Amino acid sequence: MLKKVLLGSLGAALVLTAGILLGHFGIQRGSTAPDWVMDHLSHDRSLIPMCLSRELTKVPHMATSPGDEQTVQYMLKRWQDPDTGLDQAWREEYKVYLSFPDPNTPNKVTVVNPSDAVLYTAREKEKAYSSDQEDPEVVQPYAAYAPAGHPKGRLVYANQGKPSDYFLLNQTLNLTGTVAITRYGGEGRAGKAINAAPYGVIGVLVYTDPWDINDGKMSDNNETYPFSWYMPPSGVERGSFNTHYGDMLTPYLAAKDDTYRIPEKNITGIPPIPTQPIGFEDAYALICELGGEPAPSEWQGAFNCTYNFGGPGFKPTSNFNNSDVKLDIYNREELKNSANVMGVIRGSVEPDRYVIYGNHRDSWVHGAIDPSSGTSVMLEVTRVLGRMVKQGKWRPRRSIIFGSWGAEEFGLIGSTEYTEEYYSKLSERSVAYINVDIAVKTPGSDSTSVYDNWIRYFNRTSPAYGVIPNVGFLTGAGSDYAAFIHFLGITSMDISYTYDRTKTRARIYPAYHTAYDTFDYASKFIDPGFTSHQTVARTAGNVLMRLADSLLLPFNCSDYAETLEGYLSKAMELYTDGLASHMISIEPLQTAVRNFRSAAARLDHALSILRPLKVRRINDQLMLLDRAFLDPVAFPDRYGFRHVIWASSKAGQATFPGLADAYTRAASTGLDSDWKEAHRQLSILVQAIQGAAHTLGDPDTG
Amino acid sequence: MLKKVLLGSLGAALVLTAGILLGHFGIQRGSTAPDWVMDHLSHDRSLIPMCLSRELTKVPHMATSPGDEQTVQYMLKRWQDPDTGLDQAWREEYKVYLSFPDPNTPNKVTVVNPSDAVLYTAREKEKAYSSDQEDPEVVQPYAAYAPAGHPKGRLVYANQGKPSDYFLLNQTLNLTGTVAITRYGGEGRAGKAINAAPYGVIGVLVYTDPWDINDGKMSDNNETYPFSWYMPPSGVERGSFNTHYGDMLTPYLAAKDDTYRIPEKNITGIPPIPTQPIGFEDAYALICELGGEPAPSEWQGAFNCTYNFGGPGFKPTSNFNNSDVKLDIYNREELKNSANVMGVIRGSVEPDRYVIYGNHRDSWVHGAIDPSSGTSVMLEVTRVLGRMVKQGKWRPRRSIIFGSWGAEEFGLIGSTEYTEEYYSKLSERSVAYINVDIAVKTPGSDSTSVYDNWIRYFNRTSPAYGVIPNVGFLTGAGSDYAAFIHFLGITSMDISYTYDRTKTRARIYPAYHTAYDTFDYASKFIDPGFTSHQTVARTAGNVLMRLADSLLLPFNCSDYAETLEGYLSKAMELYTDGLASHMISIEPLQTAVRNFRSAAARLDHALSILRPLKVRRINDQLMLLDRAFLDPVAFPDRYGFRHVIWASSKAGQATFPGLADAYTRAASTGLDSDWKEAHRQLSILVQAIQGAAHTLGDPDTG
Repeated sequence: MLKKVLLGSLGAALVLTAGILLGHFGIQRGSTAPDWVMDHLSHDRSLIPMCLSRELTKVPHMATSPGDEQTVQYMLKRWQDPDTGLDQAWREEYKVYLSFPDPNTPNKVTVVNPSDAVLYTAREKEKAYSSDQEDPEVVQPYAAYAPAGHPKGRLVYANQGKPSDYFLLNQTLNLTGTVAITRYGGEGRAGKAINAAPYGVIGVLVYTDPWDINDGKMSDNNETYPFSWYMPPSGVERGSFNTHYGDMLTPYLAAKDDTYRIPEKNITGIPPIPTQPIGFEDAYALICELGGEPAPSEWQGAFNCTYNFGGPGFKPTSNFNNSDVKLDIYNREELKNSANVMGVIRGSVEPDRYVIYGNHRDSWVHGAIDPSSGTSVMLEVTRVLGRMVKQGKWRPRRSIIFGSWGAEEFGLIGSTEYTEEYYSKLSERSVAYINVDIAVKTPGSDSTSVYDNWIRYFNRTSPAYGVIPNVGFLTGAGSDYAAFIHFLGITSMDISYTYDRTKTRARIYPAYHTAYDTFDYASKFIDPGFTSHQTVARTAGNVLMRLADSLLLPFNCSDYAETLEGYLSKAMELYTDGLASHMISIEPLQTAVRNFRSAAARLDHALSILRPLKVRRINDQLMLLDRAFLDPVAFPDRYGFRHVIWASSKAGQATFPGLADAYTRAASTGLDSDWKEAHRQLSILVQAIQGAAHTLGDPDTG
Repeated sequence: MLKKVLLGSLGAALVLTAGILLGHFGIQRGSTAPDWVMDHLSHDRSLIPMCLSRELTKVPHMATSPGDEQTVQYMLKRWQDPDTGLDQAWREEYKVYLSFPDPNTPNKVTVVNPSDAVLYTAREKEKAYSSDQEDPEVVQPYAAYAPAGHPKGRLVYANQGKPSDYFLLNQTLNLTGTVAITRYGGEGRAGKAINAAPYGVIGVLVYTDPWDINDGKMSDNNETYPFSWYMPPSGVERGSFNTHYGDMLTPYLAAKDDTYRIPEKNITGIPPIPTQPIGFEDAYALICELGGEPAPSEWQGAFNCTYNFGGPGFKPTSNFNNSDVKLDIYNREELKNSANVMGVIRGSVEPDRYVIYGNHRDSWVHGAIDPSSGTSVMLEVTRVLGRMVKQGKWRPRRSIIFGSWGAEEFGLIGSTEYTEEYYSKLSERSVAYINVDIAVKTPGSDSTSVYDNWIRYFNRTSPAYGVIPNVGFLTGAGSDYAAFIHFLGITSMDISYTYDRTKTRARIYPAYHTAYDTFDYASKFIDPGFTSHQTVARTAGNVLMRLADSLLLPFNCSDYAETLEGYLSKAMELYTDGLASHMISIEPLQTAVRNFRSAAARLDHALSILRPLKVRRINDQLMLLDRAFLDPVAFPDRYGFRHVIWASSKAGQATFPGLADAYTRAASTGLDSDWKEAHRQLSILVQAIQGAAHTLGDPDTG
């Protein structure tokens, strides 16, 4: 089904290898925007200079930095442009819990001898290259949300820091009081420290092994950037070290100024011990000096030495013999404002149906690829569509909402707070969410079409259609689609142009989350001429227009059924016997999947004999009003009571029940925890009533 | 707004005093069914003999009894009648957790002296009256879900069994090892025992004081039934002694055969100690013999003696001196099948929008009023509407679903399981729920119109409309509307014809939940001639038709705003200072209510300039498909992950994530608790996929 759409609209002969991830639905031919609109999007020559504007990458734009604010202004200006802007654009602020290093006292990793004399100091910043116009030495590498502290202990090598890695290491060594060095991959960032702490490990280092990202390349002189796309030895992959997403202090609630916040001590899913990322240059200096037994072959990386477990600590023959590794971490958490920039093109026929298109705006340093490749694609799409709207040539059937999310790098915060704040409205009205974050990871290399390239490099065999382009599943929380698909249940897709796996085994593009992700790097090594950017802009633009313009939504439920059947057959293969031996029948699951399949088939048939319908819009607003007052976590101990207005109350007062009960209790006990609950109930109410106001609000204004 | 509708359609000059409870919306004039349809409903003379058919009350129809099955068959026959039936009717079975007394070993309450000789035995059953055609002595009184046991201890009088009652009693007495006698009212049934147990109370008796239900009348000879509507001395109010609703073993999951059930020991909200209801005849014999200090004046009831606290135990001057009260309770829990009977009239224009009309079918004994007054009204409404449909004269714009719920008396079980099983479909498509359970509580006494009667006895002053009929709030879980409004957030109303509060202070009609709620009682004392039944049938039928037929849903959001403003002003009055002194501002709540008000006003305006809309039906099905896979409690420890298909998984298998993780864990630990979780995940999946199938299903077939 995908085939026709992509062939039809992307004759411009560009390459989109693999890596387009749709939530799960294939896209079906349907009525679409007029041809000349498609044409416009495909052939507009002015796309080229605009894609990945240097403007977006000139200064570092870590969340809340002056660079981020500069980008906010830049986007607002573009989206409010009278000739090429959107119908409306504005900013929305949240106050969110972020983690920063201390700019005055940089984090330090040193090797110290028994009398605390420093034998080695790891780089505090990446090395600058004159060929790169931006200054890379501006944002210290650190592990966001890792606690401050000064652990000092013998070093051990713990592979990827998985539970099984520490388990194995602990068979050989006593880990109490050690510092573990781990490599990226195989385990979430925070997990490397969370898994370590129960064994008594007191600090964690993380580095990117050249095996995992550089295809083994290590040389500073000719193999790595600025000579190639590979990460230089000083490059450090930063990241947010947390396992949940969204603002940590305001789960399920939008982080407004007055919102209830949980106590910091109740935060879970972050490193319990100091943690610091380092470059492979420093990792090499440490790992190759480690003593103890050789680690298993799967633990070996690209360094030209044997990776040992550690004695714990260094070899007797090393200069570091009897020395400790010391971490001096000065990270601190702060409540900071972070903005989403929002824009809308109002729908002509169904303004109360939303197609949402988003990407984050913040980056770890310059972020030319992550996220500015996606941001430039979004700006390009909005410019082309905005101009047609301003010229009166076109207006989509449904409304399109654009979101430039803040603070994604700290845990998808901007997009999550947005979904929390507009929970009911988005639940009721959103048709789909499209995410384009890292738009491109590699240059286009030949002139085959997107479709031909896709089916060649990333295909699957469908019982119904034979060999077709494959579409991956959005099962994780890798970018801002997470809250849309996992929290709101909105059909989502994440689009990127990725590389040919037969040519590299890099986990991701090598400069990812380092100071080397710059305009210079992107324009020289990732996408010279920005042809892949254009491919993605055209592909995403077309998908967006089909979702916004088709009379029937271009979703194919039978594809969904196919996935469920695949899941089912795997489950039956793996679990049937084990369940049966505990008197649990898997049969109801089979029945359910079968019923889904027939319902999907029925709907497919119904689509072909469709008749138009009626006055649904205002009735829907009315019908869903009560739904907007539901909060499944408002009263966790009261089964089935989710309605924050009509729930029963013990307080016997004709007012909001949750607040009444909580206030009455707090007033009688005076306990701080009870006052916190009263505040929580208040915030729940505010959000629910705001949500209900949105439900009733004018669908014409987004 | 109510005024116009009720005046316009109920010229039949019948009385509906007070007591109509709409969720919260007023009903607005809108386009409705043709006049001749209204006419038909209002003037059909054949209404009279059908209303409250003796058929419905002939045999006791406690849930799962032969009488209940007989009623199921009766309703199916009526709803499948070729001339007056619905488009479709069927039964749906659940396997639910119920509690019954032992028919062979009746529960016993005795007074025993120190050597265990029995001095007094309370009645085991109600007394039969020859004037009543049904045999009232068929279902033992008991407290459903109260545990079996044989506590024996000194008696104390604990008023209504509220926390404050036991607190006060405990100031004077040591309650350890005592049996408490409490009266109905002021506290939920289960609460009387739950509140007692922490003080060491080992058993609880509950009775209905004549003060609370009989306006003080007590005499068996001339004051009570069969001489009046008042409860005879032997009458015992039964009930379900639980604080949550729905099947206790399957919270959030429909109780199908294969559904995961929680361990019985994890059930909360039921009496921890044996509990038994008795008649006031027996309560009199016990309470008037109690020793100790006189209870406060608010604790005194209608008996012609002083209600003392108890020594604990009886007066030294009593024959019961030094004696204990002993409970012998043989209740037991059983998994039993219970059916809902469902019927549908398909909508002509919007078959995928549902107006749901329901009532339960089971009763404690005969249940002529509770629930058969409501059931007869529902049968009457379906008969009249069904005949018009069968004759091809009329078909509603929206679909109407009728539900005859099972096992309501045990905790709203049938309706709750229905909302759980069809959660997503009902959430997406339901316009409103109407409940008519106890349709009438008193006869009509004059010939004023429903509107005039209503505004006279139950009015309020609205800032917008002046004095208007009042509409109560559905804040509790008193009948089957609970799961619709509190769990699904569907606008709901509960309709009944109730009595003039100036003429009686009875808590509810006196035969409620006793063996005296019979056809004889109803036809002689509650509604001779069944005129109130007809009033309710016409009122409910008209509300139903307006909801099903109006082009615009007859909801008035400004009334909702008025309620919120009332709640707000109460909250500000009570809480502003206290919150402020804890640095919590109430201002965001004010803003939210204000925004709600303007949105409501805007919508009211929009209604007046409405234009028709388009192909929303199938698009809605598509749009909401993912929503159907959400389950907010599937992964309680994983913030924001509610999608049971796309959630991330640790098991690394291409199958259902929750099941994969749970199974993998169970297979490795072998723990029973982990296998239970695997089963739970399976049931969650089954229900979610079934729900998604319903979402995709043919809206034409309900």
